[in-house]
Amino acid sequence: MKRGFASDNNSGIHPEILAAISAANAGHEVGYGGDPHTEMAISRFKQEFGEQTDVYFVFNGTGANVLSLSTLTHSFHSVICAETAHIQVDECGAPEKFTGSKLLPVATVKGKITPEGIAGYLHGFDFEHHSQPGIVSISQVTELGTVYSVSEIRAITTLAHQYGLFVHMDGARLANAAVALNLPFRAFTVDAGIDVLSFGGTKNGMMLGEAVLFFNPELAKNAKYLRKQSMQLFSKMRFVSAQFLAYFNDELWKRNAAYSNRMARLLEQEVRKIPVIQLTQEVEANGVFAIVPPEIIPQLQEKYFFYMWDERRSEVRWMTSFDTQEEDIYNFTALIKSLV
Amino acid sequence: MKRGFASDNNSGIHPEILAAISAANAGHEVGYGGDPHTEMAISRFKQEFGEQTDVYFVFNGTGANVLSLSTLTHSFHSVICAETAHIQVDECGAPEKFTGSKLLPVATVKGKITPEGIAGYLHGFDFEHHSQPGIVSISQVTELGTVYSVSEIRAITTLAHQYGLFVHMDGARLANAAVALNLPFRAFTVDAGIDVLSFGGTKNGMMLGEAVLFFNPELAKNAKYLRKQSMQLFSKMRFVSAQFLAYFNDELWKRNAAYSNRMARLLEQEVRKIPVIQLTQEVEANGVFAIVPPEIIPQLQEKYFFYMWDERRSEVRWMTSFDTQEEDIYNFTALIKSLV
Amino acid sequence: MKRGFASDNNSGIHPEILAAISAANAGHEVGYGGDPHTEMAISRFKQEFGEQTDVYFVFNGTGANVLSLSTLTHSFHSVICAETAHIQVDECGAPEKFTGSKLLPVATVKGKITPEGIAGYLHGFDFEHHSQPGIVSISQVTELGTVYSVSEIRAITTLAHQYGLFVHMDGARLANAAVALNLPFRAFTVDAGIDVLSFGGTKNGMMLGEAVLFFNPELAKNAKYLRKQSMQLFSKMRFVSAQFLAYFNDELWKRNAAYSNRMARLLEQEVRKIPVIQLTQEVEANGVFAIVPPEIIPQLQEKYFFYMWDERRSEVRWMTSFDTQEEDIYNFTALIKSLV
Amino acid sequence: MKRGFASDNNSGIHPEILAAISAANAGHEVGYGGDPHTEMAISRFKQEFGEQTDVYFVFNGTGANVLSLSTLTHSFHSVICAETAHIQVDECGAPEKFTGSKLLPVATVKGKITPEGIAGYLHGFDFEHHSQPGIVSISQVTELGTVYSVSEIRAITTLAHQYGLFVHMDGARLANAAVALNLPFRAFTVDAGIDVLSFGGTKNGMMLGEAVLFFNPELAKNAKYLRKQSMQLFSKMRFVSAQFLAYFNDELWKRNAAYSNRMARLLEQEVRKIPVIQLTQEVEANGVFAIVPPEIIPQLQEKYFFYMWDERRSEVRWMTSFDTQEEDIYNFTALIKSLV
Repeated sequence: MKRGFASDNNSGIHPEILAAISAANAGHEVGYGGDPHTEMAISRFKQEFGEQTDVYFVFNGTGANVLSLSTLTHSFHSVICAETAHIQVDECGAPEKFTGSKLLPVATVKGKITPEGIAGYLHGFDFEHHSQPGIVSISQVTELGTVYSVSEIRAITTLAHQYGLFVHMDGARLANAAVALNLPFRAFTVDAGIDVLSFGGTKNGMMLGEAVLFFNPELAKNAKYLRKQSMQLFSKMRFVSAQFLAYFNDELWKRNAAYSNRMARLLEQEVRKIPVIQLTQEVEANGVFAIVPPEIIPQLQEKYFFYMWDERRSEVRWMTSFDTQEEDIYNFTALIKSLV
Repeated sequence: MKRGFASDNNSGIHPEILAAISAANAGHEVGYGGDPHTEMAISRFKQEFGEQTDVYFVFNGTGANVLSLSTLTHSFHSVICAETAHIQVDECGAPEKFTGSKLLPVATVKGKITPEGIAGYLHGFDFEHHSQPGIVSISQVTELGTVYSVSEIRAITTLAHQYGLFVHMDGARLANAAVALNLPFRAFTVDAGIDVLSFGGTKNGMMLGEAVLFFNPELAKNAKYLRKQSMQLFSKMRFVSAQFLAYFNDELWKRNAAYSNRMARLLEQEVRKIPVIQLTQEVEANGVFAIVPPEIIPQLQEKYFFYMWDERRSEVRWMTSFDTQEEDIYNFTALIKSLV
Repeated sequence: MKRGFASDNNSGIHPEILAAISAANAGHEVGYGGDPHTEMAISRFKQEFGEQTDVYFVFNGTGANVLSLSTLTHSFHSVICAETAHIQVDECGAPEKFTGSKLLPVATVKGKITPEGIAGYLHGFDFEHHSQPGIVSISQVTELGTVYSVSEIRAITTLAHQYGLFVHMDGARLANAAVALNLPFRAFTVDAGIDVLSFGGTKNGMMLGEAVLFFNPELAKNAKYLRKQSMQLFSKMRFVSAQFLAYFNDELWKRNAAYSNRMARLLEQEVRKIPVIQLTQEVEANGVFAIVPPEIIPQLQEKYFFYMWDERRSEVRWMTSFDTQEEDIYNFTALIKSLV
Repeated sequence: MKRGFASDNNSGIHPEILAAISAANAGHEVGYGGDPHTEMAISRFKQEFGEQTDVYFVFNGTGANVLSLSTLTHSFHSVICAETAHIQVDECGAPEKFTGSKLLPVATVKGKITPEGIAGYLHGFDFEHHSQPGIVSISQVTELGTVYSVSEIRAITTLAHQYGLFVHMDGARLANAAVALNLPFRAFTVDAGIDVLSFGGTKNGMMLGEAVLFFNPELAKNAKYLRKQSMQLFSKMRFVSAQFLAYFNDELWKRNAAYSNRMARLLEQEVRKIPVIQLTQEVEANGVFAIVPPEIIPQLQEKYFFYMWDERRSEVRWMTSFDTQEEDIYNFTALIKSLV
């Protein structure tokens, strides 16, 4: 089977996760989250993020983001986000459709939005002609593979809160960020002022499953209804909960993410040896962005899955994963060398 | 672990399904459906329902119903359905929220809507003040455990098509219906005039996964965007596709459903021996509805999971499943006898 | 020009209203409600309904209803209303589209819903699969021309509030109800427990304009944004506000409604003299419902505008208005007599 | 009463318009557009724009824009528009709420978007993760008072159509553009490739009323339902239709707009004599944009209504109207001179 660097969701299920699904498969359990696996998994999240955390499991990242945003906004609010944000460019308008809100894209510096970028939208408060600034959404890891520092996050949450906005973090690759920052999850989420978090599992070894974490339970009182209404309530929820339990067990999340990040650095290092390849982003997590001579791309893609990032400048995105092999990287970069 | 008759989704994953997930877990595969398992699973559905069928896998039943309805309607349409329909009473308004359409409930006879019931809403065409009748939705098996005959379905689809409406079937328990009717799926779906089908897997042994089948591909041209926008596109889709392949393999769907239906009849038969219990619906698939003396219900629920159906008349719903044991039934009915 | 009994909105503008529009047409005024006419009109409403009332002018009745409902509900709520309610049958699904909520129709007794009818939907609280009962909506005058008594309203608001629901009144014909009840507006609205009121002007002599009144300003804090987002904010608002000022001046609303109600009673009285015509509803306001021999209807409609109410039983609806002439009625009933 | 330059909707009703409302106020007429005034007004529009034009009257500009967009798009489409567009910044998110679509803002040159700006969003076709580019919306006159030439419009419609997108024109100030271009309406709308037009009346002397014109009736088949569902169907429609008839009578639209544009040029000319005032946009229609010393703005606003455009650089917007007096302009600029 062809291997590649297309996306961390091209990988399968980590064996420990699969084993947990299998182990949870015994007898009857109440559906929709009324089972002991879910109770334990929620406890585990509270342990990690604080007892006050309200936890909602959903199917996928788009669902997690939409539940996060719709719970904290009204339709007349706006959502300020990076122009590269997943919610802006990769969700086919699900946020607008479900929340009714306006998304306001901000240009980024190294894939990150800045307080200055946000500030450009902080006006028109109380003015009914204007979508009311309601929430800022940032991605950690960003879509360009970079990682916000705690102080960068705090600068954003401080500004947002000062103006009465909430801050959402799209943590589809949160584990990779935690490893990159060498910090526990809470240090750069709840403790840095984040109000609601999409906690990703699928891209780091789970079969499927994301969690929405509200750090102020007052804000979450409508979340259970919105999860159901947004078609994100899993009947046999024990099978997501069991995956999360395995994900936290022996820090599987950290082992997977550390490995994946290390593979990205190895790929970076090998690619740096090839002069015609130009890296375009700093490699801080598990993504490598590079400008590659367009004439060799078809031949590379014949052997390895990966996607163009920006066709116009021949920029590609290579993602590593928990199951990337060192051999994959050496073979891939050898192939590049043979083609240039 | 406590067993019960609460819902067919309180069961776990059938071993053959779990084995298929495991077997699919090798190497990298393109996400979002671009993998060979998905290609094969779609082929398998086409083989079952006809080559013209357009197939979209989604996470859950609510997602399948909403994708079905939103693809075939505009927001100014109405959806005519049973007053007991899942889309009307069990989806927290997801259909209205996502489609913007009005749901029009029809009283049922034995859980089924009739052409007469539908006809009451077939007016106001071209009149802009009126939500335009757009689609009829029926559940097969119904929410009351009964099964539409082919001629009953045909009467509905004929009337609907005559007035320019589409017909949707919510087939969360389609396999149980196929067994009850002793017919292939297509005989009472596409061949009976159904336009779009929510084909259920979760309630009959899958971990999760439903399919939306459009029988006229012209009608489905927006479905892929609506699936994504409704948060129902699974990144690691191979793991749903592999389940469906196993579901069709050696007719696992039929083995599970036949067994489950048989357990319901056994439960019916044992319950009939207890004079104070009054069955309220015909047992045609895997659900048994009965009026039970209210005073014994708490004691029964202490030992077995099940839900009240209609509190006011002390009516309960008991569902059987592929993993219901004959012993469960004998023990359960023995307990009832001991309490009355 | 052909006259008729089709609808009270087939009439034009009362001369005093038109004069007020004309008088307001001097110089520049701040748009969107920041003008002195609007300030005065809001004051006038507060005087009528209490100082705590929050007042929002909108274009039309559908807009008023949608603003009322959307301000007091979330998308996961349900709206309990008469199966004949304007929001249920005459607004092309605007409430579902804009609020995302489910409408639950209740059968009526003389066009009115009852606490018993509402009670059938008061379950499933806290159960996330179920649209949460959020608001009851009643029409005063009802769509069948009948009028809720204060005690009937109070029975509904008491029950609703006991379960945490709000109560909305669609007062498209509120003036006709006030006259019928011989009560000030507040006696059967805010003082009877209504939370939000669509106060109609268009059907009783205004050119256009309705007001949404929230009787608890806490509940209205999102209303100004929702009015704009629902496309109901009038730039040259002074011209609606001036109409409302004229509407209250010398109790024009009461003069018009009293006259209109009186014309309906006259029509009733004349029609009672024609044995083959069977009145189907009590004539309490300005509508007369009757079963008319189907063979004479086309000839009647050739000379007079009016609508069929229920084709199946040959029931028609005749509405009177501030500009109905006694002569219209005598001529119309004479024509009926000549045809039967 | 204080006069000013705040907005063309701070003016009242042109006397000829008011007379037409008054003249239409006789007897009964069928509601919702079934009256002879509406028939004539629609005819008049067809005469102006071509027989194939489908015409829908609505209450206000936001309503016109939302009806235009929602009729031509699905929720998974995106709307490409200027970052300054009314639909993007002045409608409180009504387009997103009602259409479910994503708005994509484009930076402007002199308030106009360019084919280059649009081209940046013309990718991701057929890719279900991406909101599908569906429609381009341009404002004529732009929000910065500039006017697209026919060739600029044609460049945009040609590009859009080549990629399968529709083009909408927000013509809230269409008459001012027609005068500025010295062209009939159709030359820079339907004949330049526009698919749907919001034709404004309110800002040029009408009390209220806008028209949505579809130039291909095939595209408009859902418009009547969407107008009702978007709460934009006026019951006493004759009173908007009569206004439009007066608006076209003796080219009132042109007299008003020509006058208004001339007043803007006069204001420009007088302001140019004041060295500290810096004009920021070309004065092509009825808006003047200028940077004004911040210290004098409060004193100016005490005597004259007007709005800040960009607080950060002390830029103001002055709009002229059909009822602006030359004296207003001389007094206003004299006041400026006295303050600087």
